[in-house]
Amino acid sequence: MVTIKDVAKEAGLAVGTVSRVMNNRGYISDSARKKVEEAMRKLNYHPNEMARSLQKKYTNTIGVIVPIIDHPYFAKLVSCLVQEAYRQDKKIQLLSSGGLETKEAEFIELCHRNLVSGIILCNGSIDVASFDNLQIPVVTIERKKEGDSPSIECDNWQGGVLAVEHLVERGCKNLLHVSGHTEKNMPADVRGNAFLETCARKKVQGKVVSKQLKRYELPDSDQFISSMLDQFPDTDGIFVSNDIIAVMVLEICKRRGLRVPEDIKIVGFDDLNITRWTYPQITTIRQPMEEMARAALDLLEKSQKKKPVASRTVLPVSLVVRGTS
Amino acid sequence: MVTIKDVAKEAGLAVGTVSRVMNNRGYISDSARKKVEEAMRKLNYHPNEMARSLQKKYTNTIGVIVPIIDHPYFAKLVSCLVQEAYRQDKKIQLLSSGGLETKEAEFIELCHRNLVSGIILCNGSIDVASFDNLQIPVVTIERKKEGDSPSIECDNWQGGVLAVEHLVERGCKNLLHVSGHTEKNMPADVRGNAFLETCARKKVQGKVVSKQLKRYELPDSDQFISSMLDQFPDTDGIFVSNDIIAVMVLEICKRRGLRVPEDIKIVGFDDLNITRWTYPQITTIRQPMEEMARAALDLLEKSQKKKPVASRTVLPVSLVVRGTS
Repeated sequence: MVTIKDVAKEAGLAVGTVSRVMNNRGYISDSARKKVEEAMRKLNYHPNEMARSLQKKYTNTIGVIVPIIDHPYFAKLVSCLVQEAYRQDKKIQLLSSGGLETKEAEFIELCHRNLVSGIILCNGSIDVASFDNLQIPVVTIERKKEGDSPSIECDNWQGGVLAVEHLVERGCKNLLHVSGHTEKNMPADVRGNAFLETCARKKVQGKVVSKQLKRYELPDSDQFISSMLDQFPDTDGIFVSNDIIAVMVLEICKRRGLRVPEDIKIVGFDDLNITRWTYPQITTIRQPMEEMARAALDLLEKSQKKKPVASRTVLPVSLVVRGTS
Repeated sequence: MVTIKDVAKEAGLAVGTVSRVMNNRGYISDSARKKVEEAMRKLNYHPNEMARSLQKKYTNTIGVIVPIIDHPYFAKLVSCLVQEAYRQDKKIQLLSSGGLETKEAEFIELCHRNLVSGIILCNGSIDVASFDNLQIPVVTIERKKEGDSPSIECDNWQGGVLAVEHLVERGCKNLLHVSGHTEKNMPADVRGNAFLETCARKKVQGKVVSKQLKRYELPDSDQFISSMLDQFPDTDGIFVSNDIIAVMVLEICKRRGLRVPEDIKIVGFDDLNITRWTYPQITTIRQPMEEMARAALDLLEKSQKKKPVASRTVLPVSLVVRGTS
């Protein structure tokens, strides 16, 4: 195996100089840099990140635990985390738990054995407090609040307010909120509360209906949505708690002969790709996932450096107006 | 830091015995196993995977390079790879290149520095041969064929044949194939050739139209699809080369007042989640992504052990009949 000493010898320079070039640290003359790079190429030398990590006693790897990857919300979140990690020169070890607590526990242990420098728990439900002696910083994203790990959330309350205010502004008087719960006590739950309070404030009718979904199963909610439209036939505006169900609500409205947005208006939540593949395209509340990913990684970095971190970070959402409203 | 020696001392056993328990190797009595496990718990000892990897000179990490994660096809492929890697006790380091060759090259170098034990290149276009002195096994999935890295593909030809045979069986006489190219010389290209040959064999009309898409951009093909339907008004069956475009074709047919499947039938390709969120649900050709993920990881394992591997592995597709046909 080629070592840094071989590179120094080949370049005719001191090991310290080679090290400075490789770590891009301190003063390095252009000619020294060029010599080192040529020597590295000639000897086919690749600095060994693992040996460095072992010296530091941790890797630059972040464990990311999501319930599911093949799902438009989590695919976008993972994408944002992978891209932000790359920007910060970190690696992502990705694990998918199916939302099972036993798997989550096993994955946290696995992350520990692999000396990750931090863990990001997306959604899910295991009690992080039970892993206190892990001594690895943990941060959660849009996840049930338990224990004292710092959390990153979007402003779910603001999302509910924005959706109702927009529908009312567009003339709606009879609003319905369709939520699709997977767990209890999730940050997303307040979307419904904000919906009700804003309906009262704006003096319009507001009803909340919710469909209990199996853990992260993609919804099969045709009948449920149809029966809700039967039950509340005066509905002229629907705020749906996620874009996947909003796609279905749109489809069912069209099938019932309702014109969207003329007869009924729809606002989703998350701003996923699929909102742009429907006709009309779906108005939605944008969850700032790039910013949430960055906040999570920044927070882990601070934790590792023993700097103080916010226990709760709530990032603003925004209204994206498209064709359904 | 707690070491294996501390565990052995606490358990009152030899270091070799503790090592056998931790690696689950050789004979271990139940009582010894229990003692070791108790000592590990008591001392909060977590075996250090990284130190082991360094001894072995490689990690059990596989680098996976995809062009994009937030996309229904690649999200499913990544999901299958992560799950299969977990089953095989391997880690996935995930990187997303945006389809850029410069990024791919950088990521391959990054994988090398991180001592990955193999690289899986999904799609993309960089010439793998230029990295020959990497000495890391590389396998490609549904990717442009260049150089001599072993490849995993689905049987794209069979997919085209199955789609046409099904449409003809359902009574179609004027077929159209809509393809959405992103690169040239991709394995998926033969879907169109198989379509044409099978149309000729079955003595039905067959036209191929293709929309050049930007690299992995999600399509904005409304106008294109509409103009194709104007140009070929007798079309009664459409084979679309991927499910995302199939969703759009379905939407445009409905908007033009065509009844699906009565007036026009649609068959997609891939079998992604989104085929079950439309009305009617989309008939498609299932790409066996779980099996492709397993084949890729198995192949890297063999390569690493210097066993011979297939240069090309083609896995069978299947027809999934739903509401659009």
